[in-house]
Parts: sequence; C-alpha cells; structure tokens
Amino acid sequence: MSFKVTTESLWSDLQKVRETAPLVHNITNYVVMNSTANALLAVGASPVMAHAQEEVEEMAAIAAALVINIGTLSPDWITAMQLAMKTAVNKGIPVVFDPVGSGATSFRTRTCRELLSTGANIIRGNASEIMSLVDASIQTKGVDSASDVSLAEQAALDLAKHYDNVVVVSGATDLITDGNNKAYIPHGHPMMAKVTGLGCTATAMVGTFSAINRDNFVAAAHAMALMGICGEIAVKKAQGPASLQLHLIDTFYTIDQENIAAYLQG
Amino acid sequence: MSFKVTTESLWSDLQKVRETAPLVHNITNYVVMNSTANALLAVGASPVMAHAQEEVEEMAAIAAALVINIGTLSPDWITAMQLAMKTAVNKGIPVVFDPVGSGATSFRTRTCRELLSTGANIIRGNASEIMSLVDASIQTKGVDSASDVSLAEQAALDLAKHYDNVVVVSGATDLITDGNNKAYIPHGHPMMAKVTGLGCTATAMVGTFSAINRDNFVAAAHAMALMGICGEIAVKKAQGPASLQLHLIDTFYTIDQENIAAYLQG
Amino acid sequence: MSFKVTTESLWSDLQKVRETAPLVHNITNYVVMNSTANALLAVGASPVMAHAQEEVEEMAAIAAALVINIGTLSPDWITAMQLAMKTAVNKGIPVVFDPVGSGATSFRTRTCRELLSTGANIIRGNASEIMSLVDASIQTKGVDSASDVSLAEQAALDLAKHYDNVVVVSGATDLITDGNNKAYIPHGHPMMAKVTGLGCTATAMVGTFSAINRDNFVAAAHAMALMGICGEIAVKKAQGPASLQLHLIDTFYTIDQENIAAYLQG
Repeated sequence: MSFKVTTESLWSDLQKVRETAPLVHNITNYVVMNSTANALLAVGASPVMAHAQEEVEEMAAIAAALVINIGTLSPDWITAMQLAMKTAVNKGIPVVFDPVGSGATSFRTRTCRELLSTGANIIRGNASEIMSLVDASIQTKGVDSASDVSLAEQAALDLAKHYDNVVVVSGATDLITDGNNKAYIPHGHPMMAKVTGLGCTATAMVGTFSAINRDNFVAAAHAMALMGICGEIAVKKAQGPASLQLHLIDTFYTIDQENIAAYLQG
Repeated sequence: MSFKVTTESLWSDLQKVRETAPLVHNITNYVVMNSTANALLAVGASPVMAHAQEEVEEMAAIAAALVINIGTLSPDWITAMQLAMKTAVNKGIPVVFDPVGSGATSFRTRTCRELLSTGANIIRGNASEIMSLVDASIQTKGVDSASDVSLAEQAALDLAKHYDNVVVVSGATDLITDGNNKAYIPHGHPMMAKVTGLGCTATAMVGTFSAINRDNFVAAAHAMALMGICGEIAVKKAQGPASLQLHLIDTFYTIDQENIAAYLQG
Repeated sequence: MSFKVTTESLWSDLQKVRETAPLVHNITNYVVMNSTANALLAVGASPVMAHAQEEVEEMAAIAAALVINIGTLSPDWITAMQLAMKTAVNKGIPVVFDPVGSGATSFRTRTCRELLSTGANIIRGNASEIMSLVDASIQTKGVDSASDVSLAEQAALDLAKHYDNVVVVSGATDLITDGNNKAYIPHGHPMMAKVTGLGCTATAMVGTFSAINRDNFVAAAHAMALMGICGEIAVKKAQGPASLQLHLIDTFYTIDQENIAAYLQG
C-alpha cells in the first residue's frame, strides 16, 4: 500500500512540534552536532546532546525521542548509545537510528548490527548504508553513496520486516517503509548532498516527529517531506551549499501551511 | 545597588579587547566550539580550544581568561577542567563557568558543584541552571529553561554570596549580581533562544571581557550588554535563526560606539 | 627556483576534483569538523571524519588522501592518527599534516614531532607553528600567530629538507617549498584570520588536491591559490567574518575558470 503525505496531516504535526517543543536527546557525531541542534531548535523542538555513560540513561528517560547517529564513532560512545537505547526501549520512547558510513568499515557495519539488536523504531540511511545492514558485502564510499534509492528498496523492506520497524532510505526520492506500506517523498534538491550532515538533520527531524506522533511510519514520512520541501524553498534562495544550509534552517523556522500546500500539490 | 552600563565604559572595554586580542582558553562543549570560536574572533579575542589533561595547565597558564562549559560532559574532560581551573585560580586568571544543563541530570548538577568548589570568578547560566546550583531539586528540561530570570534572582544572590563571585542569569532581561550589587540588561531578542549555543557564546564573551577588566561584575555586565545589543541589531537583518547567527557574528566584528549608544539609550 | 600557479593548471586540477570526488579522510579537531566537511563537499571532494582506532586503518586505506590535524588533541586520537598515517604511508596515499598550536604547549610540539616521524607528504601551518617544528623554543600564542611568513622561510626550507616533503606556511603571502623550489601565493585577505579554522580548511584543501595530483608541491600551490582567490571573492560580498565564511564555501562550489583567471592575472 502506498501512503501520501497531506498538507493537513503534516501541518498538524508541525504545529504540535512548535507547541510542545519535544525534548529530543541526540547521541550524534561531532561534525553535525551544531547544525542538528540548530535545525531542531528552528523547527520548534528542544534538542539536547549528551553522551556520557554517567548521564545518558537519565537524559534519555526525560526525552520525548532518542536519536542515535554513529557518524564519528568510538567504543565509549557505543556503550553510552546502548545504555540510552535500552532506557528508551524500556520506557517506550521512540528510538531513531542513523547508520552513518555503515559499509565503509567493518567497525561501523558491526556496530550498527549490535546497536540495532537493542531496538530502534526507525532507521534512516542512504541507499548503500541501508543495503550494508542487510548484506555486509556492500561497500560504502566513506559516508556518501549513490542516490539511487530503488537499489535499496528490497533491502529496506527486508530490514523493516526483520526488525519490525520503519526504514527510511534517503535519496533523490526518499522511501519510507514498514515492510508492507511504502511512502515515496519526491522532494528535495541535489545540492542538499553538498551540505554536510543534512542526512543527519533528516534523522533528527524524524526523531522530532516521532516524539509527537506515535505512528512511526507517518512521523517519518512527515519529517522527510518537511526536509524535502524546506530544501526546495531554501535552494531557490541559495547561491551555493553554505547559503542553502542557512536558508534551510531559516525555513524550518518560518514555513507555514501555505508553503507546505504549494509544494505538496506542486 | 543597581548598576547601569554606559556607552563610554562598554566602548572602552570593547576597544581594549580589539587592541589586545586576549587569549581565551575554552574547555567547552562539542556543539558550540565552532560558533564560540567565531564569536570570539569576531569581537577581537584570540580563542583557543584545548582539553587534553596533558596540556590544559600549560594552556591555561598563558591565557588571559579561562572559560569552562559542561555542555557535553565526560569524566576525562572533568579532570581536565579541574586541572585548568586550579592553574587559573593559582595564577589569578579569571575563570568563567557555564553550568549547561545543570538540573537535567544528577551527573551535571554534581559535576557543577565539584568544579565550582575549585573556584570560578563568574558563573553564567539560565534561570533553571542557576537555581539547580542552589537547590538540587530543581529540574531543567534538557538544556533549555524558562526565560523568567526573576524566579532565579534569589538563587543568584545566594550563589554569589556563597562563592564570593559574580553570577549572571540570562533571560529576557539578564541579571548580573555579586551578591549585593545588581545590574539588569534589558537587551536581546526571543529569537536568540532559537540559535544553539548563544548562552555559551555569552559565557565566552564574559570570559573575554573579564580578561581585560579586572572588575568581574562590570566585565560581565559589559559582555551581556554587548551580546544583547548585537543580538537586537542582528535580528533586524535576520529571516530566521541561521541568518540571526550569521548577522550576530558579523555585528560583533562591525559594531561601533554609535551603535552602542543608540541601543543603550534607546 | 620560483614556481607560478597558472589558470590552466589550477582549473584542470579543480575539474579533476569535481569529476572524481576523491575520498578525503580527515582526523581533525572538533572546532572545524563541520566547516572542513562543508568546504570539501563544496569544492567537489568526498570528506569523511573517522577517528576510532578500530576503523582508521580501514578508512585510510580506501581514501585518496589523509588529513591529520591536531587542533583538539588527546592521547587516544594520537594513537589513531599514527595508525592511519602508517596505513597511508604504506599504501602511498598522500598524508597532509596540520600542526595546529604547535609551540603553544609542549604536548603539541612533542606530538607533532612524533607524528611527523611516521611521515607526512605535506605540512601546512602558520609561521610560528612551522618555526616551532624546527626550534622548540618558539612560543605560539594559542593557535594564532604573526602573519609574517618571511620569518618562517628558513624554517620551512629546513623542515622540507629534513622530512623530504613539502611545507606550506600560510600568511599574508603563503609560501610553498620542497626545500629547493618555492612558490609564493599573494592571495587571500586579512579578514580570513577572523574566521575560525580557515587554516584547517586550507590544509584539507591541500589534501584534496594532493589526492588528484601526485606532485605534492604543485598540489599544495593549487590548493593555496584556490583558497586565496575564493577568499578574495568572498570578502567582496561579506559584511563580517560569518558572511565571509558563508560566501567562501559558496564560492568553492561556484568558482569557474574565468574567476580564476581574473584573480591570477589581476
């Protein structure tokens, strides 16, 4: 079954984010901490970054969503991620997982599988990352990948069934699936791949929407649609990747129902 | 006694910063390292970030001010913070402390109290952080808090008297107190709370001014007034939080005596 | 012998970067990870940041260049740097080294010497950093230094001969030398020193060009010329250091042969 994001449902969830400012606990990579925090603040969430084993359980327990991103991994952080994920799973707090660079090194691929065994409600990655979670022989080039999502569609379906969760594959057209239902999000712009960490921002945005909508599939679709639409709006004002990043964050803050309607129907 | 920042005194100190480029040693969190360094460079200081136990004493010893910020804490960093703080205290180098997220986890609250026992000349936090330093039962939501500074006024006075130092509570109107004297800074703009780490920037700015003005109370008032005025100037050019951040840093670089006078008297 | 960058050679190498998107593995400091990644993406490279001892050898082995930057050093990271450098040296992958703050603390100076004994094809630093690698008595003020490159010319020549590599000294006019040949790059703008991490960006840019041009001396000259030219273009649109940073990254993305020609001949 194919699902379509509507203006009403996306706008309703965005308003909920802005009104409730959900606390989103991120254990993420050094590269994107600042831009992720700024994106979440702009959209209306309340981000917190905390990674010490001494506090992640306590922080995850008061959060409305937990975002785990392995972009700049080291063993201490893995332990902290596990502690936070266990807390969130036990308390029914949604966990969103980003397997950055899975497939590039065996350390990353192995760590993803270990962390996923603790449980994640939603996984978001690019095509090669998602494929590497199913087939360890897939090789990712650093943290980039081909944007051809269709290559990863079967892997996404298999993964979602295996973990009984929702899988998001980002690319020119994003795919969201729970193993049965699918949503395709045809928004965004190729220049977004020239800004570091917009995949990580998308993951954190998925975390934000999962905090206010318990249907993980719909939450993920809303978040990816918002990312894509805001990206398209921002690209129109941009002269390159840095001004794109700036206008994207400003757009998270200013986007209204009319903007959403114009792009979803466009 | 109530103290008022004047154009002459703030401008004189800003010129000193620009002329002497004081070395400000920051042991701060991952989220804000880049934006803090850029803010300090723009205002005229010379920032350095260094956290290894192997070098923090040597680095703190050559610095004109030490800024300690616990935003993304872990045990190794606490040890380094203690070493740097001891060095600074022994050498009479001003120490400015930012208890980011104190009250959100017991690890943060406990660490703040331990670090403060080493000595800090100035503490800057938001209302709930400052309150949590006095009353451990105060709960902070992640790293955000209510902007109602008045709630924290008694805590700030008590804290300043207890540690014999200066306490700054940021909010819609900032409060600076040494336990007896008070200054209120009615500058800034609500959109500043939508940019990650502007509280941390304020703390580093307080560190910068404490490096060139040995009156910690006046230094803190100057720094907070400059933050607020530059924020108001930047908001006028901004279309959202990201362009606010950009214009804020540009304004630290370009602000002149006339701009300051216009806002302080306005 | 003095070498001059030509439009044809720089443009040819820039096109190679954009066409091949070389994977550049960075083990760099927390302050600049985001801005470095964005600069490399904008110019056309594929940056990856990875520092875990468990994966740096595997990541370095698939990279086209390795960039080592000691800006926010700690012992675990030094071990990882050594592992990555050994892998790169063994595989003939170019290694570019940035001795951030060498001369500011004995830990930094000592670490630089240890790491350089593993081997680096290119070293890029400011005048006092480069001098401190030759004469440990040189004192760097934090991570800044005098921009008078001429002071460091003899040190650069000695260093390049000692390590049989290429040394770049950044400043008002950059110097590139292999111990015999020299290139002077008179591009850039003083406001660039007010943006944190542009030296680190330059180093990563040198790494990018060394990935597609096996002549390290020419690669370094191309990278420094591109940095300087893009900086001059960006300054014209900037109102301060933050807008300079934004326009610089946008310019890495948009710069064409005509722009290069205009500045090289100007």
